[in-house]
Formats: sequence, C-alpha cells, structure tokens
Amino acid sequence: MNLVRNGWYVAILSDRLSTTPVPQTMLGDPMVLYRTTSGEAVALSDRCPHRFAPLHKGTVKGDHIECPYHGLQFNASGACAFNPHGDHKVPQAARVRHYPTVERDGIVWAWMGDPELAAATPAPDFGEFFGAGRWALVSGDFEINAHYETALDNLLDLSHAPFLHPTTLATADSVNNLRFEMKQQGNTVWAYHYVPDTAVTPQFAAFRDTSRPCDFHAHIRWDPPGTLQLDVGVTDVGGRDEDGQLIHMAHLLTPIDSTRTRYTWLAARNFVTDNAEVSKVMQQQVQMAFTEEDEPMIEAVWQYMGTSDLLSLAPVLLPGDAAGVRARRILAQLRATEAATTAQKTVA
Amino acid sequence: MNLVRNGWYVAILSDRLSTTPVPQTMLGDPMVLYRTTSGEAVALSDRCPHRFAPLHKGTVKGDHIECPYHGLQFNASGACAFNPHGDHKVPQAARVRHYPTVERDGIVWAWMGDPELAAATPAPDFGEFFGAGRWALVSGDFEINAHYETALDNLLDLSHAPFLHPTTLATADSVNNLRFEMKQQGNTVWAYHYVPDTAVTPQFAAFRDTSRPCDFHAHIRWDPPGTLQLDVGVTDVGGRDEDGQLIHMAHLLTPIDSTRTRYTWLAARNFVTDNAEVSKVMQQQVQMAFTEEDEPMIEAVWQYMGTSDLLSLAPVLLPGDAAGVRARRILAQLRATEAATTAQKTVA
Amino acid sequence: MNLVRNGWYVAILSDRLSTTPVPQTMLGDPMVLYRTTSGEAVALSDRCPHRFAPLHKGTVKGDHIECPYHGLQFNASGACAFNPHGDHKVPQAARVRHYPTVERDGIVWAWMGDPELAAATPAPDFGEFFGAGRWALVSGDFEINAHYETALDNLLDLSHAPFLHPTTLATADSVNNLRFEMKQQGNTVWAYHYVPDTAVTPQFAAFRDTSRPCDFHAHIRWDPPGTLQLDVGVTDVGGRDEDGQLIHMAHLLTPIDSTRTRYTWLAARNFVTDNAEVSKVMQQQVQMAFTEEDEPMIEAVWQYMGTSDLLSLAPVLLPGDAAGVRARRILAQLRATEAATTAQKTVA
Repeated sequence: MNLVRNGWYVAILSDRLSTTPVPQTMLGDPMVLYRTTSGEAVALSDRCPHRFAPLHKGTVKGDHIECPYHGLQFNASGACAFNPHGDHKVPQAARVRHYPTVERDGIVWAWMGDPELAAATPAPDFGEFFGAGRWALVSGDFEINAHYETALDNLLDLSHAPFLHPTTLATADSVNNLRFEMKQQGNTVWAYHYVPDTAVTPQFAAFRDTSRPCDFHAHIRWDPPGTLQLDVGVTDVGGRDEDGQLIHMAHLLTPIDSTRTRYTWLAARNFVTDNAEVSKVMQQQVQMAFTEEDEPMIEAVWQYMGTSDLLSLAPVLLPGDAAGVRARRILAQLRATEAATTAQKTVA
Repeated sequence: MNLVRNGWYVAILSDRLSTTPVPQTMLGDPMVLYRTTSGEAVALSDRCPHRFAPLHKGTVKGDHIECPYHGLQFNASGACAFNPHGDHKVPQAARVRHYPTVERDGIVWAWMGDPELAAATPAPDFGEFFGAGRWALVSGDFEINAHYETALDNLLDLSHAPFLHPTTLATADSVNNLRFEMKQQGNTVWAYHYVPDTAVTPQFAAFRDTSRPCDFHAHIRWDPPGTLQLDVGVTDVGGRDEDGQLIHMAHLLTPIDSTRTRYTWLAARNFVTDNAEVSKVMQQQVQMAFTEEDEPMIEAVWQYMGTSDLLSLAPVLLPGDAAGVRARRILAQLRATEAATTAQKTVA
Repeated sequence: MNLVRNGWYVAILSDRLSTTPVPQTMLGDPMVLYRTTSGEAVALSDRCPHRFAPLHKGTVKGDHIECPYHGLQFNASGACAFNPHGDHKVPQAARVRHYPTVERDGIVWAWMGDPELAAATPAPDFGEFFGAGRWALVSGDFEINAHYETALDNLLDLSHAPFLHPTTLATADSVNNLRFEMKQQGNTVWAYHYVPDTAVTPQFAAFRDTSRPCDFHAHIRWDPPGTLQLDVGVTDVGGRDEDGQLIHMAHLLTPIDSTRTRYTWLAARNFVTDNAEVSKVMQQQVQMAFTEEDEPMIEAVWQYMGTSDLLSLAPVLLPGDAAGVRARRILAQLRATEAATTAQKTVA
C-alpha cells in the first residue's frame, strides 16, 4: 500500500472521543475508536470476527464494545469478553486487532504497525505550544482525496504560497526575495523559508502596523511518517523572533488509505491569546486557505500523477523541491525496511 | 459469478407485469419482462442481437416486442418474427435468449439455467398460504447491495433478532431462552427457533393480551437457491400452533448480480384477515424492519467481507451459524456440479 | 485505447476560446486550450512537468500560460519560458506537449498524433456552407458516454430514424420507402438515404406546404476519424435539390477517451436565412433530437456492447449496416497502421 506502518498517526482529536463509538479508517484498516467509561482511548479493528459486522454501530458497555449484530462483547485489548448466546462459551479465536494508543495535548495517536515497536517510539509531543495554559490554540481537520505524500510535497515547499495563496498566506513580492534552506538530520527534515524586509502577510495584517515592513519566516520540521510542525511569524526587520507575532502549527497527516488523507491541523499563537473572536476568525481563515486553495490543488496534482511514486514520473525539479524529495526518500527507505522485516519474520 | 443458475428465481410479482415492458437484471443477465396481449408472462434477453439496443425501451405489439432502435420484432420465444426494412427478410440468427417462466400464486418465476432442466424442476408452490381466498397477504420488495448469500446468513440465524430488531421483531429476553435446532434433508435446510414462555414480540403485541406470556417460534425452511419460508407465530404457553397468531412468510432472493440482490417478501397471516388497515400497517412494519435494520447490516457485513466465500475469511463460528453454513455448502456443491456439467458439455 | 491518433479533431468552437484557459480532454490526453493575446489558438498538455499541476487553472500572460502552483510560464509551443524562482534558470526538460492547431470556419481543430504528419493532412474545410456570409448557421454540442464509433454507427445508418425520431426527424412511412445506397472511395464513406414522394418531415414542416408530398434525402459523407457531413433536404417531387429546403450539417466526434465522446454539430440552412427566431428554434430542435433521442440510445447500446469491437459481438447485420461497418473497418486499418509505425519507430 506504499504506506509506512510503524509510526504514530493521529486517530482523533481528544474532544471528539467519547463512549459513543466512532468509525475511522487508517492506512486502509477499518477501525473503531471509543473511550471506555473509565476514560481510556481505545482503537480496535472495526470488523467483528464472527460475521464481520461493524463494531462502531454497536454500543460501549463499561469498558467493552458490544457488536450490533449478535451481541458479542470485546474488551479494550480486543479480546472477546462475553458471548450472550447458548452456553456463553467464548471462542478462543474471537478477538479483534488492538492498536496501541497514546493521548497527549488533545490528540489521540494510534500505532499502526508492529505493536512490539510502539513502546520504543515516543509519540509526538507538542506540550511546549499546545499544553494547557500555553499559547491560544485553534484546530481543524478535513479530508484530501490524494496520497498523503502529495500533501507532504505541498507543505515542504512553501514557494507555492505567492501563487496559490496570494491573498491569504503570502505576499506577491515574496517570490523574488524568498531565501530557502533545508537540512536533514537522521530522518528529520527541516525546510526554512525567510523573506527579509517584506510587507506584512495577510494573516498577520490585523495585528501589526502594516505600513512598516517586517521579516517573515516559515520554518518547517517534518518527522516521519506524517508529523509536520510549522513555525510561521513576522518580526520587526532584524528583530528577535520572540518579540514578533508567532504561530506554531502542527500539520498532521493520517492516510485513510493510499488515495485519501485525513489532515488535522492545530495552530497556537503568541498574540491576543485571550480573545475568542480572534481565535474564531483565525480558525476560519486557516481552514479556508487549506480547503479552498491547497486541497483542490493537491487533489488535481494527485489526479495527474496517478501514482504515489513521484520520481517515476521524472518530474522537472527546482531547488525548492529538495526538502520534499528528501522526505519521500526517507519514507521509501522506511517502507523498504518494513517490507524486509516482514519478509524475515515470515521466513523465520 | 458464484451463482447457481439452475433454479427458479423470482422475476417479478404478477401484479406489476403488464404489456409495458420492464427491465430486470437477474444473475447478471439483462432481461426484459412483459405480458403478451394474451396474458402470458415472457422473459427474454434485453439485448437486441442486431445493434444491442435495450428491448425494454420498445413496445409490445400483440405477442411481439419491437426493438426501439430499428424496429425488429421478437416473439414470446425470442425469435425475430418481423423485419420492417427492405425485403423484410428475417436473418436466421436474429433471436434473443428466452427464459422459461412459471406464474403461480402472484409470482412470476424465471429459470436462469439450462432450459432443458426447467421442466423437471417444479417452481416453488406457496398455494397453501398465498392462494386466492387463503390467509391475508401483504408483500414488498427492495434491493440489497450485497451477495445474496449474505442475506441468507442473516435469515438462517435469527439469534441476531434481539440485537438488530429489539423494538420490532424480538424481545430482549429471547437471547437467553432461545432454543435453536437445525436439520438438513437432501438440499433443504430447516432452522427452528423457539422461545418458550416469553413476552409477546412487538409485531404481535396489538393482537394478543400482552400481560400473559406466550411461546414464540420462528421456523425457517430454505430451498436452494433463494427460497426461504418462515413460519413465525405466538401461541399460549404450551398451546397449539393453529390456535395462535401465525404469519407465514416467503423471503425470496434473486441475485441481480454477484454484488446486488433483489429481495421479495410475502407475508400471510391467519388473524384479522379481513382488515385492510392491519394489512397496511403490517406491510409497513415488515418493510421497515427489513430495510432499516437488516439491509444496512447486511450491506455493512458484505463490505467488510469483500468476498462471497465466507469460509475463506476464517470466521469465528457460533452454534447458531450451523444452518447458514449448511446452506452455503449446498450452494457451493450445486455450483461445482453446474461447472462440471458445463465443462463436460463443452468437451462433448 | 482503440482510437486513431493521426487526425484532426474538434478541440473547441472558436467563439468559446479566449485568453481564459479551458481544460479539454481529447483521446485521453488532458489538455489546456487558450488564445494568446495576439489571437493564436493554443493546445498544450495540461500537466505542468514540475509538480503536475493543471495549467488550465493558471493565467494567460501575453502569449504564455502561467502554472497556478509555482508560477512556471510556458509559451505557445509548450516550452518553459520563465521560472520566477531563485536564479530564474529554466530547466531544459521543462516543456509540455504541444498539439498543432488549425482554426477555420469557426472551429479550432487539434492534431492528436505524430506532429510531423499534421502539415501533410489538411484539416476539414466547411467554407462552402459555414463560411462568413454563407448559409444561416446554428451549432451545439454535448457529451455521450460511449465510444465514438457507437455514435458513428448511429449516424451512418438512418434507418433508425422512423423508430427513434418519429416526431422530430422522420415520418413513419419512410421505413417502407427508404432507398439506401452506400459507396466507399479511399477512406471516405458515403451513405445515401432517399425517400421519394413522401410526407414532409417534421423539421421542414413549418417551411413548406405540407399538403403536398416531397422527395426527401439525407446524404452522409464520413471522413476518418470523426468528421461527418449530412446533407438533408426536401424538394418538390422530382424537383432539383437547389430549389428545395436544404440543411448542411457537420457532425464532429471527438473522443474524450475510449468511453466518452464530445459531439459537436453545426447546421447551415438555405432558407429563411435572416431570421434569428427560426435559428433559435432550429438549434433547440436539433439539440433536443440528439440529446433526448439519440444520446440515450447510443449510451444504452454502448453499455450492452461493453466493447468498441462491434464485430467481436457477432451482431446480426442488416443491409443498412453496410456503411457503418465500412467505417469501422477503415478505422481498424488506420489503427493497425499507426501501431505498426509506432513499433517500427521504437525499433529504429
């Protein structure tokens, strides 16, 4: 499926998870998410092993979820814990796949690969920006009909901003003055975008004196498989970052399958942090730029690519593509490693 | 296509068939159904052999159906009987496949397999319950986006009723007291469901004193490929069936193709047989339980199965699955026999 | 794809082409059409070679089209002429496929095959009928969900008219009196349809004394791949064509791909040539006969054929099919020649 399985992916935002089960497809796996009555976030395969009914149409009973078709109950680790029929004997094979979860800073993450590897890999930690009482936080999500690497390409090269977001995120003159750098460290890729001495970009216009130029930056850190952090901000020309208006964003990509992506974003700002109206407007503006500008372009590109293997299409590459191409190579390497490990386990 | 062809399948209910042609796809075959001016029910291939126009868009002229594209006319046995063009010569090859039909008790049945075998196999006979002047009859139909064997699984194991139909067909306590038995005789499978000394189920509640318990039964007889009869009823505890309220149902499954099923049902009751309002309410209740409770579940299960070969999915089986699994094995055997016969004919 | 590539196909009607880019898929190729500020009609591949963005969502700047994603600009021959980023270096490989075009008599034609062969093949010339100041012209277009040869079959055999168009294009008695002839000369096929001494057909009824019979003719000339001309008219019985009411039509079929067809038609008449209301009514009537009578039938036939290879279905053929079968054989021969040439080039 051309997807990396050993990784933490966003399953759902915490405030959307309750004892009412929610269906969610991740990496092609149909899953049910629910919170036990004791508050634990649970992710299980949604397919009952008896007659393949969708568990998410069932009911949470204590820490169990009850199948809506014949009433088998499964516990939070996926084992069948109750059979209402006949002699109530529980068939030993009656269990559904359990996915490890971590809940932190308002996000429920699920581990989609080998469960033995989950503990050794910490889930992303955004406590510095998104922790309780920190910066003012807004969030949103939407779906893209494209392989998630196509969204990754979009994010890791912000030279598209003056063309795709001329009235929302970028100014026209930034195309000439953009300074782009990237670096790779292990499997982490950084893409740095600076525009010195430029006009204030639209999203900060309401919060600065737009008659004075500023320095603009947008720095991205990507960690595989689908976690991007974007520090975007404007400062006085030559000023310090911490004196400017800063927004720390997380762009979190969860492949629904190899042709669809759930895109979850969070944005924490360090300015007018106690104003709900500003939060509301910012939420709408960001969501709109993503869904009305990026999303249609990513989907159109995906249609024309027809494959997730960008390099097989022999694209004409520009210097700004360096970070995206690195990320794609890292993912390809991770997939190859996973495939080899799986093959080895099969032989052993 | 994983479908048994040598069998009688419901083509249409008699009262829907007239001289206005009706398109119907059965077992993947596009067909046209019509009644000749002399009243005979006709089932032909819908594809004109000339330019492959759909005959059902044409017109019945006497006992012929006229192609809407170039006007060739076919008689009730499928032979071209008139060519309006030029010298009016009828090409010998101009014929469409004819499907044997039997019309009985308000149902038009079509034989989808080897026509030579049709005469040796009587079509189902429901005269005892559905014949003119017998029990009060209502009927309905709908389509399910699933292989018909998935609907068969649903019908042959009624242990799902307390979970899927808790307010319509079953009572909650029946899950603990259900006595299930099955038997197979030749290619016929029976599934017996009894709940002794139980609360009156919702569909009988308006017709009995619900303060007194009853014995509930629901006995199914299945004959391949798609004919199920269900005797459901409530009696006094320890009482005789014929003194209780009884409903005799036919559940008739016609595969549209290997992923869709036309589901026709008839229900005859032995109580308040002359009350049109009761008939109307019962028709609505049954249709609602089927289309709003069973149908979504069968379709969801089919989506998760992804194949009509249940056993290839290694399901966890419970005792209640015995009848459904027998039916599946019988159908597999019938398909294997048909395939062998076809292969033999091809060699000969 | 079972389509002839070396041929002129309608890209767009002239009056719909401006400096606002238009997407158009032809023979499976996604294309962008636009007019340069100097008026030239341009047809390019719609896929930017950088990140595969759709150029038609971009902007025409002078004679260039600018990619909407990262701003690369391509000139009218498809070469990248400007890179707005960094050192502005234009990668040599940055070009999109250019399709030769010819604009004539209100039609923009595009050549979909080997560009070296375009110059040697003149685009169709309808100047005699459609040239400025000639007969009164109306036009229209629509899409058919079918391989274009299925539409071709429909056009080359007008014996379907009394059955499919009984109230619009044909009279019922024409079925008995139709005289049909065909001839082939090189790769051009003619199909002649005469009905002598017949009632005036509906489309001419408002323009003649319908109490008197007429001679009706409908002569078709087809040139591969998708150009049909239809001379339809009514004259006094035994009278000369030029004294009658004549309509010269072009039926121009452009495969969108192997399952969909863009159908463009033009109709020039020699009567009441200066009446806009007559033009409007005629436009509506022709468009309606095509989209409400022919189109559903062609689509239904295509569904039942399931292949573009008519003869593989062993159809029952009538004498009226001769012209259509000739056209299909010519197209098959042209495809075979193209395939052989391509294979030879690949080897060389």
